[in-house]
Order: sequence, then C-alpha cells, then structure tokens
Amino acid sequence: MTNSNSSPPRPDEFELIAELFAPLATSPRAFGLKDDAAIIPESGTADLVVTADALIEGVHFLESDPADSIAKKALRVNLSDLAAKGCKPHGYLLVLAIPSNVDMPWLTAFARGLGEDQKAFGISLLGGDTSSTPGPLTIAITAFGLIPKEAMLRRSGAKTGDLVYVSGTIGAAEGGLACLKEIATPINAPDRELLIQRYRLPEPRLSLGQALRGLATSAIDVSDGLLADLGHVADASRVRIVVDAARVPVHAALTALWGEETVVHASTAGDDYEIAFTAPASMCRQIAEAANSCGISVTEIGRVEEGAGTVFVDKSGREISVAQKGFRHF
Amino acid sequence: MTNSNSSPPRPDEFELIAELFAPLATSPRAFGLKDDAAIIPESGTADLVVTADALIEGVHFLESDPADSIAKKALRVNLSDLAAKGCKPHGYLLVLAIPSNVDMPWLTAFARGLGEDQKAFGISLLGGDTSSTPGPLTIAITAFGLIPKEAMLRRSGAKTGDLVYVSGTIGAAEGGLACLKEIATPINAPDRELLIQRYRLPEPRLSLGQALRGLATSAIDVSDGLLADLGHVADASRVRIVVDAARVPVHAALTALWGEETVVHASTAGDDYEIAFTAPASMCRQIAEAANSCGISVTEIGRVEEGAGTVFVDKSGREISVAQKGFRHF
Repeated sequence: MTNSNSSPPRPDEFELIAELFAPLATSPRAFGLKDDAAIIPESGTADLVVTADALIEGVHFLESDPADSIAKKALRVNLSDLAAKGCKPHGYLLVLAIPSNVDMPWLTAFARGLGEDQKAFGISLLGGDTSSTPGPLTIAITAFGLIPKEAMLRRSGAKTGDLVYVSGTIGAAEGGLACLKEIATPINAPDRELLIQRYRLPEPRLSLGQALRGLATSAIDVSDGLLADLGHVADASRVRIVVDAARVPVHAALTALWGEETVVHASTAGDDYEIAFTAPASMCRQIAEAANSCGISVTEIGRVEEGAGTVFVDKSGREISVAQKGFRHF
Repeated sequence: MTNSNSSPPRPDEFELIAELFAPLATSPRAFGLKDDAAIIPESGTADLVVTADALIEGVHFLESDPADSIAKKALRVNLSDLAAKGCKPHGYLLVLAIPSNVDMPWLTAFARGLGEDQKAFGISLLGGDTSSTPGPLTIAITAFGLIPKEAMLRRSGAKTGDLVYVSGTIGAAEGGLACLKEIATPINAPDRELLIQRYRLPEPRLSLGQALRGLATSAIDVSDGLLADLGHVADASRVRIVVDAARVPVHAALTALWGEETVVHASTAGDDYEIAFTAPASMCRQIAEAANSCGISVTEIGRVEEGAGTVFVDKSGREISVAQKGFRHF
C-alpha cells in the first residue's frame, strides 16, 4: 500500500475500480469492468474510428489543476480528435498510472469529472487499466467514434484553391497557462478566469465536425499550435497553406498579455482544440450555415496553394518569420 | 530538446513517428500515422474486442531489460488478454511517454521489437501518441481483437461442477524476476536464462484461447497470480473455486529457488500470462484435444463449487493459508 500520510488509506486496485470506475461503465458491453475487455458491436452502417492521447502531469497539466477538470481535459482532448474527424463519440478506455501521493478524495473528484463529462457527451467508459507509478500521474485515453463509411475527415484532402478556416478563437488556452504560471499577467480578473477555463476545459467541436462532413476537404484539431497543425495538413495534402495573420481570430483578452506579439504567440500556442479545416471556395455559404447551425464561429484565415509548408503573411503579403510553429515534446 | 549528453540528438516527435513507427502502420486504415485516428472497418461477422494495459519502468519491467523485449512484452500482455477472450488479434494503438534519458538506439531497438512481434502475430500498429515525460518510461497499449458474435470467453460463466484448468506452467516469470534481482539464486545458468526469458517474453496463448471457444465456460489470463485471477473468475461467476496445490503445474526449475514454498510462491506470482479456465467435466476429452492441437499443455487443477472465493487445498483437502493471492499495485 502506498498512501500519503495525511489522507485516509486508499483502497486496493480492484476496490478502486469497483468503487470509482465501474459506475462509469454504463455500456452493457463493458461488463461492469469485471472482465479484461469490452465489446464494440458493429453498427452495420458506420466505420469505427480510434484515437489515443495521453496527459502527463507537468507536461500537459499542472499539479494545481483541479482533479475533475484534469479528468475532463483528458477525455476532451481525445473527443477533439474525433470532432476533427467528423465523428460521433461512442466510448473510451482509461489507462491510469497513479503515484503514491494521489489520495482517495483526488481520485473521487477525478472519477466525478469523468462521470459528468461522459454524461454530457453521451458516452461510456469501456475498460482500461489502473497501475501504480513512481513517476508523474499519467492518463492515457483511447476514444472510439462512429462515422458513416468513407466519410471520415482527413488531413490529406486539402486542394489548391481551397480556403482555410478555423473555429472559435486561438491562443486562449496558452494565455490561461501563462496566467496560471503567473508570468507577468496585466490582465483583469474576469478575463484571467476565462483564459484559465479555456486551458483547463477545452470544448471539443463535435457538432461542427459532424456538420463539416462532405463540406471540408481536410480537417485537424488545433492541439500543437495553429501553424504547426496546418503544417501537418499541408504535408499530408502535399500543398502550401498561406495564413493571413490579420485574419486569425485571436482571443480579445490576449493583447494585454502579449502586445504586438499576440498574433504570432497565439498562432503557435498549443491546447486550443479548435478545428482548422479547408473547403472549396464555392462552399463558403454552406460552411457559414454549418457554423451557424452549431452556434460556433468559423473564420476564413487563408488559402491553399501549390507548394509545401505553411506561410504566415501580413496584410501586404509579406511573410512573418516565426521561430517555432507549435509545441514540440522533444 | 531533451537529449542525454552521451548519445546522438533525438529527432523531434514528428520525425520520430515518421522514422520509427510509421513503418509499423502496415494497415492502410492507419494512414501511415499521418492522421490523428485510424479506422477499424466492420467485418460483418465478428465482434470487435478492445483491451488496454500499460507497462511502467520500475513497476512492470526493469531498466536493464532490453528495449526490444520491453516492446514485445508491452504488446504481448495485451495479446494475452485477447487470447483469454478467445480472440484473433487485429491491431493496436501505442501511447509512449518517453523520459529524456531514452536515446535513439534504445527507441530504434524498441521499434524493431514491435515490428518483429507484430509480424509474428499478424497485426498492424494503428496509431497512438508520443510524449515526453519527467517520469519513468510508460507504454500504454490498446489492442483490438475479433471474435465471432457472442463467442467471447468471459470471466463470468463458471458453473458449479465445472473443472478448472491452466495452460503451461506457473511461476516461471516470477522466478526470472528473482534471478534478475539476484535475490539468492541457487539455480543453474540454463534454467536461469529460461526463467528470465519467461519474465521478459510471455507467450500469449492465442491459439489455445481460440480453440477454447464453445468449450470453456470462463477464462482469464494469469497476470496478477493464479489464485488472484481465479478469484476474479469466482467473483464474476458467483462461485467458489477450489485449487489442488499438488496439481498446479509449477515450472521445474523453481524448487531450487523457493524450496517447500514453491507452489504457494508460484500460485501467487504475477506475469505468467497463461490461460486459466473452467469447463464442464463432460468436456474433458475435447479440452485435451484442443490443447494438443495447439501444442500447449493444459492441466486440470481444481473444481468449481457453490460458494465464493478461491480456496487452495493440499492433498488431504485441508486449506493452505496464503497471505496474499497475487500482485497488488497499491
């Protein structure tokens, strides 16, 4: 038993699963987590889409972040991948590596956060694994989504002449992280709270992603940074993507933080979890209608050309030099 | 960049994926790992079974274990879960959290190990996530298997009157771990190597699991310890399982290590990855034929009774007291 001294004893692995996580296994095919596996039955009409993302303390979240919001973020970054693929979420597996200083109140709040979100998104925990670790808290989630056969949005479909769009606003999560790290934040309290909320609780754009099926030629969720992620689209589609800096929808509260550097900072910041996508210019009205039907703003920010890579340009078309286009792990 | 000083620089996350892991994504539905998701197409006749297990350095493997065998073990413990469900493996997702002291030669050997095993088992890498971590190397794999509809072997089907079986031999992996930790090992060199091999490279009993479809009433892979895992079967099936200590097929090399305590030690040791299962007594000939057809030995070790829990008994039917029936994480 590896408990911190200040908290009540933590139940063993099997009690922990039975008490906190089995109630989240609402699908009958998860067998109440009493088996080593779950079944995903065939729908007969849909492709099953799978994706996995891990969150690690000190890398993807802060020790001071609330347990319930860490749980929600771990789930939502995976749902964001499904959103950018145009999928409806189906369920998820949870792998949890727990250090000894994590106590039952923390785990209870974590499970509560998962429960709230899986209800909100209409999905079930299907299984997973719980283990001790000598290192940081690590949460690896595998998420499953459904999409009509052959309809999955890809990174690779962008075509020369397409327009480039992004949902919502960019840079807010990085601004929230800066506020949490208390790096000089000349920013008022309500804005501060709002930015921190965007860092801790991304909104996977599921309704928008589904509305873009058949409209977008490519899509990606903005997790590493807008320019870096559009770079992945450019690579996969073998095109060049030109982004007009002045058009990037930067969160209004950020100029107090980053001044003249705001657009570059925001466009290379991680954790936005908006959807960046391309679509033929002829689809612009349908794109606007899709966005309106979801209540999510969508902004045209650039165009697809022949060539390679992403280019960030100012109003006169001059390239803006960017040192690093997004977050890199190594 | 977080490189150890003594080794060549490690490529960034995207180069790492492209160089080492994209070649493992042999399924066209994995999109060369250039998308955030993979598609698992419907087979039309099978259920998709999903399972996830993580391996953490210092918990599930030793820093001194070879990189290629760590990769294989991470994959095989998941395949072992699929084996106990009666599944044919289909593919897997890999989540890798890499500390800064892991260098390119290590990662290259790790990817080579995965490549050898996925070829041997006829599966493809489908996707995943690569991240830095300040903590121990952590490998979380989600594995997918296929099984004819409604045929999945469960923990919950054991019936009063059934016999209890286990494949192979028990305790060898724990003996190998003891050898690696050099806890007094009065054991000859060939046996030592053999036991270490069993610790590092479990053999998922895939052919046996598939042969047990329609024969076994319940099944589980022995990962936490024979008695602990049969305890899970007893719980899920609401029965009592009596195990005859004298019948447990203990690896012959272990008595030099554990003396009179060998059977208890072996039956509560982790990492065996054999299949323990129950079947009606009337099926004993079919069970023997299934085992022979796979070339895997199967031993009858006990019986299912009314009641609850597992009981370990000696030749005269007296209960053998066991302090802890298997490995516990907390």
